[in-house]
Amino acid sequence: MSEFTPTDRTQVHRLPKRANYDRETVHRILDEAMICHVGFVADGQPYVIPTGFGRAGDTLYIHGSAASRMLGAAAEGIPVCITVTLLDGLVLARSAFHHSMNYRSVVILGKARSVESEKEKIEALRTFTEHIVPGRWDDVRKPTVQELKATWVLAVPLEEASAKIRTGPPIDDEEDYALPIWAGVLPLKTVPGATAKDPRLTHQLEPPAYVSKYRRG
Amino acid sequence: MSEFTPTDRTQVHRLPKRANYDRETVHRILDEAMICHVGFVADGQPYVIPTGFGRAGDTLYIHGSAASRMLGAAAEGIPVCITVTLLDGLVLARSAFHHSMNYRSVVILGKARSVESEKEKIEALRTFTEHIVPGRWDDVRKPTVQELKATWVLAVPLEEASAKIRTGPPIDDEEDYALPIWAGVLPLKTVPGATAKDPRLTHQLEPPAYVSKYRRG
Repeated sequence: MSEFTPTDRTQVHRLPKRANYDRETVHRILDEAMICHVGFVADGQPYVIPTGFGRAGDTLYIHGSAASRMLGAAAEGIPVCITVTLLDGLVLARSAFHHSMNYRSVVILGKARSVESEKEKIEALRTFTEHIVPGRWDDVRKPTVQELKATWVLAVPLEEASAKIRTGPPIDDEEDYALPIWAGVLPLKTVPGATAKDPRLTHQLEPPAYVSKYRRG
Repeated sequence: MSEFTPTDRTQVHRLPKRANYDRETVHRILDEAMICHVGFVADGQPYVIPTGFGRAGDTLYIHGSAASRMLGAAAEGIPVCITVTLLDGLVLARSAFHHSMNYRSVVILGKARSVESEKEKIEALRTFTEHIVPGRWDDVRKPTVQELKATWVLAVPLEEASAKIRTGPPIDDEEDYALPIWAGVLPLKTVPGATAKDPRLTHQLEPPAYVSKYRRG
């Protein structure tokens, strides 16, 4: 199976048994997550900004507008770190020290390239939309030339990436297992609530199935 | 009401009407979130790492172990950016361009200080535990001196912070409201699933109420 080659920078040093460099695993985590956190440096200060994203093969597209501070400084070739985290559960151990969380995360290092061509911008916008609500793109009014000009998109190649995963019950110190303390996992998931239609909806429209039956993961 | 003073670095430039510098708003977002994303710089490369955290008044404590790469480089006074994001809903507009998300996020800039004193480390661990599962600390086996030595905690003062919030329906271009396209918001929330007790639980224990009735936000 295809794997990312760990580099000095993506090799997981802390708890290396949680590391995973398998390309399919990385893709699956990226595809389930709805937002990413983009890290970049300006004047020696790190910034971390949440933003929407989408994956097209081995390219990650991110909304450049969220990183306007970065784009103001340099439109191309700026080092970024894109991190995606899915929180799967709270891990309650018998000791305070061994409390943990179950999660799946991906860290991508790379240089962000500003997408300039109209064609690639449309592809990126399609990717964003389909990433969040699969099926939506075909239904919506497509971007105009003016909107494409106002859209900032960054592309980052999926080359230097690693995943980190924790699953399963708490791991306590051997002597603590005898303590009369409840221990286990409280799983967490993100679920949709009742749809709230736009008050300005002018037609008698029901939400499409990709909304009313929305599910993730 | 108490407000953070926006600096050149925390002033929200992109969509400033979403900005909020109110201290209570910032605290509420921090207290509801379960993880934060910590950004730091090493060798000119930004890194963004998800980790647990907790707030004690105007101090944010984060698990230093997650940032071992940073601690390896410099134990104290390193610039960080801590970002917390709550995703509240998917905003489906009539045009692809105006698709958005409802969210509440906080960005904190500051210098991370390594917590050295045993007393403050215990306080930080209590804060982590109570932040994630309020009520848990009193029930668990407390940290030993050995565990405290193995615990890396960073403290960041809540001084330079801003929140950004989007709520409500999509905002479409005026002429698009007539289009026969469903539009609205699909709210999202994080909910607990059925508790999974540790297979090695040695006593006939039911999960405590702070687990079985767990809710967030």
